[in-house]
Amino acid sequence: MKLTILFGGASFEHEISIVSAITIKEKLSGFNLSFIFCDQDHKFYLIDASKMKANTFSKGEHKKMPQLSITNGSFCQKSMFSTVEHSGTLLNLIHGADGEDGTIASLLDFFSIKYIGPRTDASVFSYDKRYTKWLCDARKIKSVDYEVVSSNEHHNINMQYPIIVKPARLGSSIGVSIVRDEADLDYALDVAFEFDNSVIIEPFIECVKEYNLAGFMSKGEVHVSIVEEPQKNEFLDFEKKYMDFSRSEQVLKADIDEALEAKLKNSFIKVYKNLFEGALIRCDFFVVDGEVLLNEINPIPGSMANYLFENFEASLELLCNSLPTNKRAKVNYEYIHSISQAKGK
Amino acid sequence: MKLTILFGGASFEHEISIVSAITIKEKLSGFNLSFIFCDQDHKFYLIDASKMKANTFSKGEHKKMPQLSITNGSFCQKSMFSTVEHSGTLLNLIHGADGEDGTIASLLDFFSIKYIGPRTDASVFSYDKRYTKWLCDARKIKSVDYEVVSSNEHHNINMQYPIIVKPARLGSSIGVSIVRDEADLDYALDVAFEFDNSVIIEPFIECVKEYNLAGFMSKGEVHVSIVEEPQKNEFLDFEKKYMDFSRSEQVLKADIDEALEAKLKNSFIKVYKNLFEGALIRCDFFVVDGEVLLNEINPIPGSMANYLFENFEASLELLCNSLPTNKRAKVNYEYIHSISQAKGK
Repeated sequence: MKLTILFGGASFEHEISIVSAITIKEKLSGFNLSFIFCDQDHKFYLIDASKMKANTFSKGEHKKMPQLSITNGSFCQKSMFSTVEHSGTLLNLIHGADGEDGTIASLLDFFSIKYIGPRTDASVFSYDKRYTKWLCDARKIKSVDYEVVSSNEHHNINMQYPIIVKPARLGSSIGVSIVRDEADLDYALDVAFEFDNSVIIEPFIECVKEYNLAGFMSKGEVHVSIVEEPQKNEFLDFEKKYMDFSRSEQVLKADIDEALEAKLKNSFIKVYKNLFEGALIRCDFFVVDGEVLLNEINPIPGSMANYLFENFEASLELLCNSLPTNKRAKVNYEYIHSISQAKGK
Repeated sequence: MKLTILFGGASFEHEISIVSAITIKEKLSGFNLSFIFCDQDHKFYLIDASKMKANTFSKGEHKKMPQLSITNGSFCQKSMFSTVEHSGTLLNLIHGADGEDGTIASLLDFFSIKYIGPRTDASVFSYDKRYTKWLCDARKIKSVDYEVVSSNEHHNINMQYPIIVKPARLGSSIGVSIVRDEADLDYALDVAFEFDNSVIIEPFIECVKEYNLAGFMSKGEVHVSIVEEPQKNEFLDFEKKYMDFSRSEQVLKADIDEALEAKLKNSFIKVYKNLFEGALIRCDFFVVDGEVLLNEINPIPGSMANYLFENFEASLELLCNSLPTNKRAKVNYEYIHSISQAKGK
């Protein structure tokens, strides 16, 4: 199975995308992989598999590798006298901005490149936490209460402490704080506003039960991973999350009863269907008083949540064989023709 | 004032985009305009202003003009020995798919090209009528009741006739029908499903009062056009709408009182703010029993709704001078460096 991993991006999560790509390389050893790196200036490079090490990028060695440009149907490597086309299915592994906000999805759609990853609309609903709440409301998916605070407005929180403060549009815990006392709110908001003009505030639920579940759709059927109860340390800060993105060992199934497992699976399907087709996503849920609440959608989870799948290669292959294709409108100029005729031109 | 008009696209509204561009050319005679055509295969061509006629495209004569490729910061015209860069602000005038669904917005953002037009998230919320309803619910903007029907589901309408059936993701009245009797529903749905797997159904309100209003934001202030009461003929079919896109004569102000005008303006601002910055949009409203309901958002209205502005050139210039810019994350590899150091590498 041939697959190209696209990683990097101009994003706060650029470095964890590199870690994800390196991890994926190990997990997909049965695949015929290529690697395309998108640098912070949006230049594309073809990376030799043997150079897939974090230092390659931090030292700028990727700049010595062939530069690619995106064209209809492929990434092209142009030299003075020849053009080599790199085509085939691509896995969008750019976390955060670019990869998860709809930019890369649109770019690949525009250039008719088949890819694993959320489409533009799915990206918009998962990247911005405000819009995830709108999705929840529309689809009657329960989630945690919230308020939105904008940097240019007076903020007046109507919520009991402790609360959790999150930039609306960043993943990987960047800019996130837990605030236990009103006196600390302004500082936490300042930190979050460094990253986004809009901030989401939610009640922080102490010792909440958390469960993660990944999945995808292939040929009309949703395939879900095992349910994991992630290790708890309040919440993962960026450095811990960085390490978390290199996870590759399969985890143990959470010790939950069938009824809860079914509830989690149903909530996952409610989120996924008619929006995330083409993507393998991870949903992070809270369970409060037996009720399943959506905490977060990761439309491109760290190292593709490989550790949640019993057979990750087979899962990815199933998804690859059932990717959405864009129907493009055919233009036949019938209106211009008929109007030109009516005008006698 | 220099401005490049981007038009065409692989969309059912390709032809009306051409009409829009030709109309805009007349209305912006004081500007220094360039024209870039996107054909249905997503190839870009630089069109000589003197060739901006509908027949140029229906006869395929654009193919004789210089082809452009999109690169960081500009569209490039490459020949054997030289590269000419066409940079500067662009007006996204591609109606429907590509232009209004977020694809072009993402493409221009990715390549750091400044543009007038909805950003990716704003496009998603206006292009798909289902998501416009979610926006309305979240922002407490009143709109017409609705139901969603999917092509792969049994449809069971709980609404009194007459109803109006619309593909979720097309503008310009394509695939839209008014259904007065249940017996005609299946046919109308079949027509709509030709264009989209999801269909929106709304009660059809006979002789409803309709008002259109366009506007944009510049330097934090919303500028609105005059309010128009559009000419009524039930609803505009595609051929009528085609002609409608070439409107260039300024219209008369609707004969409404100040209170209603203020209500319409307030609803417009509720839609626009914190989402449509960078775009000049037209909102179409219904008024039922004195209540303002949002009918539709046109994030790239036909010929930019020039006919609603007293001074269209000055308005566009105001908008041009206040376009959003993307902050790109700076990557400094601090995590990779610190982890490499910790490993002693």
